[in-house]
Amino acid sequence: MMEGDLQRRVGSRLRAIRVARGLSQEDFADAAGVHRTYMGGLERGERNITLRGLERVAERIGVDPLKLLVDD
Amino acid sequence: MMEGDLQRRVGSRLRAIRVARGLSQEDFADAAGVHRTYMGGLERGERNITLRGLERVAERIGVDPLKLLVDD
Repeated sequence: MMEGDLQRRVGSRLRAIRVARGLSQEDFADAAGVHRTYMGGLERGERNITLRGLERVAERIGVDPLKLLVDD
Repeated sequence: MMEGDLQRRVGSRLRAIRVARGLSQEDFADAAGVHRTYMGGLERGERNITLRGLERVAERIGVDPLKLLVDD
């Protein structure tokens, strides 16, 4: 695993969830309680989020935070 | 899952790895490339580490970062 892989995993999973829900980045960001530019950075795997930050976002969008990191 | 659960998981897994290796907190911290007080806080689940921070520590101690978050 390369450094940055975890945040890239989180990003691709967040994007997949948003697309599956048919939401814009702005609406998804609102649901997650973050600014749309931050959500954009998260989706692109550019944000080095903390574990608590990840839990907060996951809670707000109603998913298990581990599901954002690990394949089912 | 409650907020803080992820960092508490990381802490208990780090401690288990250290104990299994028969290392002091200080030697384990040196191996992980962090200060012993920071490692103590990590082991107690008190540190809100970032995803990259977790990857760095895991790399230094030779484990998969996901293994610090998820049961085998």
